[in-house]
Amino acid sequence: MPKLRVHDFSMSVDGYFAGPDQSLDHPLGVRGEELHTWAFDDVAPLDREVRDAGNVGVGATIMGRNMFGPVRGEWGDEDWRGWWCEDPPFHHPVFVLTHYVQEPIPMDGGTVFFFVDDGIEDALEQAFAAADGQDVRLGGGASTVRQYLRGGLVDYLHIPIAPVLLGGGERLFEDLDGAMDAYEVVEVVSSPAVTHVHIAKR
Amino acid sequence: MPKLRVHDFSMSVDGYFAGPDQSLDHPLGVRGEELHTWAFDDVAPLDREVRDAGNVGVGATIMGRNMFGPVRGEWGDEDWRGWWCEDPPFHHPVFVLTHYVQEPIPMDGGTVFFFVDDGIEDALEQAFAAADGQDVRLGGGASTVRQYLRGGLVDYLHIPIAPVLLGGGERLFEDLDGAMDAYEVVEVVSSPAVTHVHIAKR
Repeated sequence: MPKLRVHDFSMSVDGYFAGPDQSLDHPLGVRGEELHTWAFDDVAPLDREVRDAGNVGVGATIMGRNMFGPVRGEWGDEDWRGWWCEDPPFHHPVFVLTHYVQEPIPMDGGTVFFFVDDGIEDALEQAFAAADGQDVRLGGGASTVRQYLRGGLVDYLHIPIAPVLLGGGERLFEDLDGAMDAYEVVEVVSSPAVTHVHIAKR
Repeated sequence: MPKLRVHDFSMSVDGYFAGPDQSLDHPLGVRGEELHTWAFDDVAPLDREVRDAGNVGVGATIMGRNMFGPVRGEWGDEDWRGWWCEDPPFHHPVFVLTHYVQEPIPMDGGTVFFFVDDGIEDALEQAFAAADGQDVRLGGGASTVRQYLRGGLVDYLHIPIAPVLLGGGERLFEDLDGAMDAYEVVEVVSSPAVTHVHIAKR
């Protein structure tokens, strides 16, 4: 059975997946980018391996609208095409959860952004169909992952714990209504830069 | 300068320092004891070293009343002498924060429980005096550590992250009013059983 997988969803030691005061200047919140340093700056071989595993066997991606862009409400005339320039790193269909549907946006390299307003289960169904037997990756943000966790729909999570304290921001592990009872930590692997926690359904 | 240190203050991956529904049967909350497995069951050499470092150079301990025992309100006739039987593992003065002062309780092995009702700073002053130049260890629970963090009074924290998900319980990292801005992660060391995060003042 194809799975719904969360990868590289970095958390601070104090439990935040984005810093406080998210804005166009700080899409990850203040100091939020420190959560992801391990994946970019001179990434260690172990960390590179874990990071790259997130792309293996994935045929489609789902993300919340805030992951796609800063536009709120109606899309309007704004010609927003995502944070990733013309050749986004997905190279497959990406389903963006929104209340404001618009036409699909084809990008270079095989990425096409589709906009879905019929709820998380409908988006998942469309994504599995598009993935054609491969897995679906759930991109975030935290509120989107939380919705899928509450529905018991996530099969696997990779949570890197970055050695930073953000002091505030957005949590994943709250308001989950007991959903985590269905999950367990299956492996923890650390590099000097980050601790990779792997979580799966019991 | 002598320091106020927190050691072995174990956290779950989802950020809880005790499980839900704390009671006399479950003083650490449901499944809360899983946070501490690493320190007891066949403890690995690295983990033993980190654990034992918590006792080095410590001349006194401070703890919240809930750490001392389950009695709430007036002490009454109950002859409660702590969770640790007649020879507690402290072997030095222990200052218990309470609103209900009682006479000190001397135990075997050098431990004496003192009861302080003049607030956290007064308790710290008494503990530093009793430690006579050595450090003071802050034993918990979470609400007690949070109070000292808010006051900027903690110099060092050792937070072991246990590979468990508790799904609910008591957090440390909340309602800290920006206090963590004064702290940084200085080292992370992992064993197969647990990830040790070391935090100090910037």
